[in-house]
Order: sequence, then C-alpha cells, then structure tokens
Amino acid sequence: MVSEPSSNLLDPAAGPVALTRQLCDIESVSGNERRIADAVAEVLARDAPHLTVHRDGDTLIARTELGRAHRVAIAGHLDTVPVNENLPVTDEHDPDTGEAIIRGRGTVDMKAGVAVQLALAIELDAPAVDVTWIWYDHEEVSAELNGLGRALRNRPDLFAADFAILGEPTRAEIEGGCNGTMRARVSYLGTRAHSARSWTGVNAIHRAGNLLERLSAFEAERVTVDGLEYREGLNAVQISGGVAGNVIPDRVDIEVNYRFAPSRSTEEAVSLVREFCADADEFEVTDLAPGARPGLDAELARGFLAAVGGVPEAKVGWTDVARFSAQGVPAVNFGPGDPLLAHADDERVPVPQIEEAHRALRAWLLGEGANPVT
Amino acid sequence: MVSEPSSNLLDPAAGPVALTRQLCDIESVSGNERRIADAVAEVLARDAPHLTVHRDGDTLIARTELGRAHRVAIAGHLDTVPVNENLPVTDEHDPDTGEAIIRGRGTVDMKAGVAVQLALAIELDAPAVDVTWIWYDHEEVSAELNGLGRALRNRPDLFAADFAILGEPTRAEIEGGCNGTMRARVSYLGTRAHSARSWTGVNAIHRAGNLLERLSAFEAERVTVDGLEYREGLNAVQISGGVAGNVIPDRVDIEVNYRFAPSRSTEEAVSLVREFCADADEFEVTDLAPGARPGLDAELARGFLAAVGGVPEAKVGWTDVARFSAQGVPAVNFGPGDPLLAHADDERVPVPQIEEAHRALRAWLLGEGANPVT
Repeated sequence: MVSEPSSNLLDPAAGPVALTRQLCDIESVSGNERRIADAVAEVLARDAPHLTVHRDGDTLIARTELGRAHRVAIAGHLDTVPVNENLPVTDEHDPDTGEAIIRGRGTVDMKAGVAVQLALAIELDAPAVDVTWIWYDHEEVSAELNGLGRALRNRPDLFAADFAILGEPTRAEIEGGCNGTMRARVSYLGTRAHSARSWTGVNAIHRAGNLLERLSAFEAERVTVDGLEYREGLNAVQISGGVAGNVIPDRVDIEVNYRFAPSRSTEEAVSLVREFCADADEFEVTDLAPGARPGLDAELARGFLAAVGGVPEAKVGWTDVARFSAQGVPAVNFGPGDPLLAHADDERVPVPQIEEAHRALRAWLLGEGANPVT
Repeated sequence: MVSEPSSNLLDPAAGPVALTRQLCDIESVSGNERRIADAVAEVLARDAPHLTVHRDGDTLIARTELGRAHRVAIAGHLDTVPVNENLPVTDEHDPDTGEAIIRGRGTVDMKAGVAVQLALAIELDAPAVDVTWIWYDHEEVSAELNGLGRALRNRPDLFAADFAILGEPTRAEIEGGCNGTMRARVSYLGTRAHSARSWTGVNAIHRAGNLLERLSAFEAERVTVDGLEYREGLNAVQISGGVAGNVIPDRVDIEVNYRFAPSRSTEEAVSLVREFCADADEFEVTDLAPGARPGLDAELARGFLAAVGGVPEAKVGWTDVARFSAQGVPAVNFGPGDPLLAHADDERVPVPQIEEAHRALRAWLLGEGANPVT
C-alpha cells in the first residue's frame, strides 16, 4: 500500500490530545523517524510561517525570531522503543480512576509531550519569549546516535538559550536536572584448572563474591542540589564468567552502574567507583555521562515553576537535559505521562495530564499570571 | 586423495611405541571414529583369530573365550578432543629430562594406552585370565553419547568381569576408582527496575555474593576410601546474570560443580550441595555421576598392584571406571602419560612410560612373578 501524503496525518488544530494519537500512530521506532519528521516538517511549513525551520537528518529545529529578551529551548524526541503489539493507540478509561487514557507505544515516552509542544509551536506566533522548538531522532538508542547531540555538534549556534525544557514524562510536573551515570567493567582474574583438581587453580568467580557482598550492603547517598534531593545508586547490572562445566574459571566480568548526583563531577564519580572496586584486577570505564543541575534558581525557571505549580522533584534517570546543562543552559524535564510506564508494553497516558501540560506551558509562554517570563 | 586401505595404517607387531604413533595419526576427534575403528577391526580380523569380536557402532569388544577362572575387562577410548595443529605426531626429546617423547593430539588421552592394549590383545593368545578388550567411541563429549555406556546398555552380557582396567593416563601407575561429579544450576531471583531507581527493585546479582563468599571460604574434604585419599572440590564454574546496562537484574544463574569421594552416594552429594545453597531460589541438578570405589582389596587388584609396583593413588577426575563400578566391577585407571597434559595443545607422552605400561600389563596377564592372576 502506498501511504497517503504524510501532511494529512497530523492536525495540530485538533489540539494536543488528538495530536498525541496522530503522532503515536506514525510508527517511529529509533532509526525509522523519517516519516514522522517529514510529517512534522510539512505541518510547520504549512501552518507556522512565524518559525524558521532547520533540519539535521531527522531532527527539526524551529525558531521564533522575535527579538525577545529571553530565549527558551523546548525539546522532545520523535522516536520510540520497539512496538510490541501496542499500536495503533486506543482510547480507554482507567479502570481504577475512571480517567480517560490513551494506551499504546509512545504515549508516555514521549509523543504526548511532543504533541503539547507541536500544538503550541503552531498556535503561538508571538510568545513572550523567543522559543527554539526541537524535535529529534534516536533518543532511545546508543548515545552516539542521539539526534540532539548530533545537531548540537553541527549547529551549536541554533541552541543558544537561557533555559530549556525537555518533554520527558514527569506526570506534567517539574523534575529538575538529572543524575549522572557511569558504567565500568570490573574484572577478577584467576587461574584455570580442571575442576577435578580445583586446588591447583584460582577461582575467579569466587573472588567476585566480596564485591557483590559490599554492593549488597552499600547504602547509596541522597544528595541535595539546588534544593532538590538526588538519590544515587550503585549496582552490578551484568555478570559473566566461566569456561566450561569442568574448568575452574580464570575470569569474571561485572558491569557496575553508578547513578550519581549532579553535584559530583564525572572525575569524582569514577574515582569513587574505582576505590569501591579497589580489589579488582581490571577496571575499565565503559560509559560516563555527567548529571545536570536543575537550575531552579534561574529567573525563568522560577516563573515556570509558578505556572506549573506543585513541588518540583529531582530527576533520577539520566535524560537529555544533561546535553543542555553541558552547554551552560539550565534545564528541567516536563511532560505528561508516568515515567515508570516508559517502555512498558502497557504504556498509557492520562488525557488530563496532556491537557494540564498544555495549559501550563501555554500560560507561561504567553506571559500570563503572576510570573511573566519577560 | 583416496586413502589407502586402513589395515595398512596399523602394525601391532611393531610394538606399542610405533603403534602409538600410528593410532594418533589416524585423526579421530569425537564423532569421527569410523576410520580408526575400521582399522582396529581389520587388524583384529587379520591377526587375532583367538578373539571373538563384537561391534556396536564404533565400539569394538574383543573377547578371549578360554574358560579361565577370572575375567578382566581392559578398555580404552578411540576418540580425542579436537586437533589444534598438533597432528601428525612428532618424535622429540624432552628438553629437561632428555627422555624420548611423542608429541601430538591423543598421545596422552589416550592413544598410547590403546596402543599398549591393542599390542597385547594381538600378542597374547593365551593369557592367564580371560580378557575382554574394549575400544570405544565418544568419550570426550557428552555422557549420553559415550560408546562404552551405549555398548553396556545394548549388550551387558559381554561386559561381565571380575576386575576392570581403564587405560586413562596415570603416568603408568595405578589410580584407583574416581571421584563422583555433580553439577547444579543455582539461581537467585530479584525484581527488575530501572537502574536509575534501583531502590524500587531487588538486585539478584547482589544476592549471589554471599554464596560466592561461602564457596570461597569452603574447605573441601579429603576422604579415605579403600585406603586411597580422595580430595573433593566445590566450585562455581559458570555465572551469568543481567538484563541490560540500565536495568536492575532479576535473575542470576550459577553453575556449581561438586566433585565428591566415591564413598558418598549421589543422593548424599545432592543433599550436601542443596543444603550449601539453601538460600537460593532455584536449585536444579543438571549432571550427576557417581564415583567409583578403587576396589583395591580385590584379589585380582592386589596382584595387579604388585605387577605395576609403586604406590596407588586416588583418581580425582571422573572417568569411565565408574561405568564398571556401577556394574559391580571394581576398576582402576592405568595408562601412560601425564593426566595434566590431557587435552593440552602440547600433549606429549614419554616413550619409557609406554614401554613400562606394556611390560607391567603383559607380565600380569601372563601370570608371571609373585602374584599370578590365576
């Protein structure tokens, strides 16, 4: 079947809830974002003459150029984790709360957030701040493929901003900054021997027992940064060792993951884990990404807090806010949906959260209420 | 190239040393024993009219039928572990001892032992005991393929004997019986969670630490059976766990191998390991083979001990002697070669050990000396 022109698939004028359904039903598993990016680009070209649009692969950067005193970057990723018989989306009611929900892949992570952003990008031709809207590809796969990272490297000038909002799911509340994350491969060595003569060898798997016991007993810290409490974590996430059923193993590899508060530098994080694993024979850092301070003391952030209401919390998972933070732009996460349902097969977003996120972001961008952004 | 008739490859009259070379150079990695079994069968048909030969797949059973008071089973396997650029064999001298050696795949495990046996099978047309010679396939692979086990199931009547000798390498000394072996898959379970929120999950890998610590501290027993000391061993030989680099793992599997003295029943062995791993969530026995008592108190065995000389030791590795022991036939290991070199790429057998094994076995079978077998 030849697909219809993609511009027919999206109708931002129908509002963010309808747009959530439309965006979800354009399947866009990481690596397959071309069609959804084309659809968004066509809608922008047709309905948003007030935006200057740049494209980098399947990442779109749409900017107002109003000469406002402040500029805000508002971003969301277009891709999803693989579909598992959960598309197209369905309209349902939560059996517990009676609340209207949309169920299916991408509803939480993060088409509802993109829908809120895209609807406002089209509607608001004169926001109180200049806005850089960013919709990008390849968020759900390895970091080097990330479209936001790629576009930032290619055109850093397009991303200058005073504050950033990433539409990752937060139940339409503010989650500030994010923890950093590091992974290390920690290895213990031994000496092979036939297991019938085990005393002639050294069992590497046995040697790992003490580290696992220490990890089990370890109480990760809770660190307060800019008023938000970041809870850390130190865990073995993978282990493998063994040669054959009759051989004393000479090697065991353990992948350790440390989630660390944004007040720690990456050097401090590496040093802490290295010291924790000091008895290991090999230690190799395999992944390292700094956290992001929440930056909630910035003037713009305080206004956004007031518009959204509620009590902001720390984001414990690493998100692309860290990419803004690394550019010196304080950033928060704000989007509809429960983050615990991200990637779940029964991913579902409450309709009222989409509407509330849309209301709060719209009010703030228009400079309404007690905390104007200008 | 069309190979020459296989009967040309073996010349038992040239003695056990030359025959070792000839047997080794017929490549016979497990599963590929047809050619060597054909060659042995042709030699028996041509040169050993005093033997009644039965064939079961690539296993040959050649029996004297002299009506002697006692019968001895003498067995060796025809297969080897995979070749690794170590065939054909080479004649060398040990750089340390100056001793003549034959180097190459199968020299130790166990073509030299088979050569000693085959030379005597052809030569001795009237031994002092009836002899059941057995050369079999598939010893180096999984137990259910073992040719000795298969032939025992198919024709148990052919294997009745008062004593058995298995030609596994023992440096031409007697190693009595063997330890039993069991393997169990021991699993700890947990609860998955995103590793950024590790406190919402239960880390299964961490839960395994205590077992590894206990294994590390465990002092295996030394158990004396029929005068020989069997040293046991309890080891983790494999470990695997983990879902992804950002997920708290909900499962870890550890393969534990217990080598236990032949005085323990398999039930006792299972019970001991199960109790040791009592905190595990799952426990599955994946492999279980009883040990073999050395049976060195048997009259025939005492005579064989005297003929070989030296001090017998316990065999710690599991061998097919246990298959004889399970039939009620006491059994010992006796063959040229250092068992520590079995399967090694630089496998090599000292020529004097081949000659000594041949001399001792020949003298005993002829009823010479102070301890006649009859």
